[in-house]
Amino acid sequence: MRYLQALRQEPTDKTPIWIMRQAGRYLPEYRKIREKAGSFLNLCKTPELACEVTLQPLERFDLDAAILFSDILTIPDAMGLGLNFETGEGPVFAKTIQSKQDIDNLPLPCPNTELRYVMDAVRHIKSALNKNTPLIGFSGSPWTLACYMIEGSGSKTFSKTKKMLYSQPDLLHRLLKHLAQAVIDYLSGQIDAGVDSLMIFDTWGGLLTPIAYEHFSLFYMTQIIKNLKNKYPTIPITLFTKGGGLWLEPMVLSGANCLGLDWTIDIKQARLITQDRVALQGNLDPSVLYGTEEEIHAQVSRILSQMGPHKGHIFNLGHGIHPDIDPGKVKFLVDLVHSMSIHYHDH
Amino acid sequence: MRYLQALRQEPTDKTPIWIMRQAGRYLPEYRKIREKAGSFLNLCKTPELACEVTLQPLERFDLDAAILFSDILTIPDAMGLGLNFETGEGPVFAKTIQSKQDIDNLPLPCPNTELRYVMDAVRHIKSALNKNTPLIGFSGSPWTLACYMIEGSGSKTFSKTKKMLYSQPDLLHRLLKHLAQAVIDYLSGQIDAGVDSLMIFDTWGGLLTPIAYEHFSLFYMTQIIKNLKNKYPTIPITLFTKGGGLWLEPMVLSGANCLGLDWTIDIKQARLITQDRVALQGNLDPSVLYGTEEEIHAQVSRILSQMGPHKGHIFNLGHGIHPDIDPGKVKFLVDLVHSMSIHYHDH
Repeated sequence: MRYLQALRQEPTDKTPIWIMRQAGRYLPEYRKIREKAGSFLNLCKTPELACEVTLQPLERFDLDAAILFSDILTIPDAMGLGLNFETGEGPVFAKTIQSKQDIDNLPLPCPNTELRYVMDAVRHIKSALNKNTPLIGFSGSPWTLACYMIEGSGSKTFSKTKKMLYSQPDLLHRLLKHLAQAVIDYLSGQIDAGVDSLMIFDTWGGLLTPIAYEHFSLFYMTQIIKNLKNKYPTIPITLFTKGGGLWLEPMVLSGANCLGLDWTIDIKQARLITQDRVALQGNLDPSVLYGTEEEIHAQVSRILSQMGPHKGHIFNLGHGIHPDIDPGKVKFLVDLVHSMSIHYHDH
Repeated sequence: MRYLQALRQEPTDKTPIWIMRQAGRYLPEYRKIREKAGSFLNLCKTPELACEVTLQPLERFDLDAAILFSDILTIPDAMGLGLNFETGEGPVFAKTIQSKQDIDNLPLPCPNTELRYVMDAVRHIKSALNKNTPLIGFSGSPWTLACYMIEGSGSKTFSKTKKMLYSQPDLLHRLLKHLAQAVIDYLSGQIDAGVDSLMIFDTWGGLLTPIAYEHFSLFYMTQIIKNLKNKYPTIPITLFTKGGGLWLEPMVLSGANCLGLDWTIDIKQARLITQDRVALQGNLDPSVLYGTEEEIHAQVSRILSQMGPHKGHIFNLGHGIHPDIDPGKVKFLVDLVHSMSIHYHDH
């Protein structure tokens, strides 16, 4: 299992690759199931269908890992905020968090009742999956969940959340503490159900100042990692803060096994900063897949040569794949990473 | 003129401050004129009104510079793309750029005809402005203009533009080259009309990989700076790439006098990288103005102490002020920066 070996910085024959949002709208077979499910959330909440779409990209491409098909906002949904995905608008919550009372009224969702559908999906996928393919579980970071719960939807600046950060920091910490516990319970449940590794998506950490990132996002992710590592010492954890290229040093200290990188930092520079203390995941610009095969070849070659001979690299995009990408380009990429990377590994 | 002295890294008595979007919706007197003008674009295109709103924040606050009231998209509008600002949706163009023919059909707008209204606004403002207050002119960067011209509107990922970058790079370079010439003409016109310094807003440079940033954004900004410095050796130029904290070293080599910083990098780290080769502008998180006076005090104090004794600092926000900020907080900020910074300057 190349992917798990790379996470542990052990030697592999080739560089493993998986792709963020690899089960998604760019695949016609996904769109078919998505239509059958009626809504995106229904698809997430029906374990058989979630399992089916999780496996779809693995039938087409020689990917080194599967990732649970789900959404980062399952936790606030299970807390009763009423999640909906409106066409072309992204996630929208019926209720938002504004006061201490709102926070104190939030339940702590149980992975085996309110979030059982996720654990069922994990069990389904694990029993259907080839034994040699690891399954990645995941959650949004507390800061990222808080962004959506306070704002009520996506936003360019999440200024309501930032307003709480600067005007009522104690209130925000109260919410983040509660969310950190919910994420610990949720990810523990996923491990118990059978996932082989975990990823924490800190999609909006990059909106913060360095000091606010440490206090309001990284602090809680570190708590989560410590807690999980206590209970499950061998579970590998990847931390991904989009736009966090300037903060790799503090991120290394979180205890994560691997840092996800977006495309705004050269992986060479990331390796220079992280000094092999963690594995690195990334970091092809998702838009490169709009390019010709020659262009994809040039960009993959650049990333592999920047990493050089290295035991801890998991190839991926720097963010989710765009929905209008040709699946043929994905096949080209996956095979190319495997064939080109042989030269960077010992035999 | 503290602001111009700081740009030249000369000693000042206090740290100068101005605020991105200081003439804007957070001011009730602005909203009144905006209503009178009928539309945002009409306000930009009526020199008397543009002059009036430019001066408004200077009547309220002890700001060290005025900035021309205008929009970064005046150039593509003058090229005939039909700019409109739809309520709550931001800029929308009637026509977009898709082909070589679209690019070859683009005129080069003349600062004294199609863009005369901007030059008239500059002249109006200069004659109305206190002689001790410098006026900043500006333009969007070629890359940022291209983003809107290809996409037709704002976007989270500007994936149409990125698609052209990776699938038809020569076509994109053709557009950027044309835009660079248009920006040179436009900024030369602003200098001739009387502005005292210039700022290039590269709002979307941060969406690029390091190498694409150098080739598709920084290269053209460097051409613009070189060209302007040839004709106007003393004009100070500030370069601002939002999300460009990882690329300060190449930005220094552009020949700009000053780099604008957003809030994701500590100014201490920026100074370590830039080593006094340029002045620095920034970098308070605009959301700090939602905080209490104590919070604003703490954050300003942090930035000033991180800069330490230094001749080339212009205090500013890391991006435009939010429209729902209390003007009283702005007054508090401006006065605080002046009073606290005295201790960091020689006397």
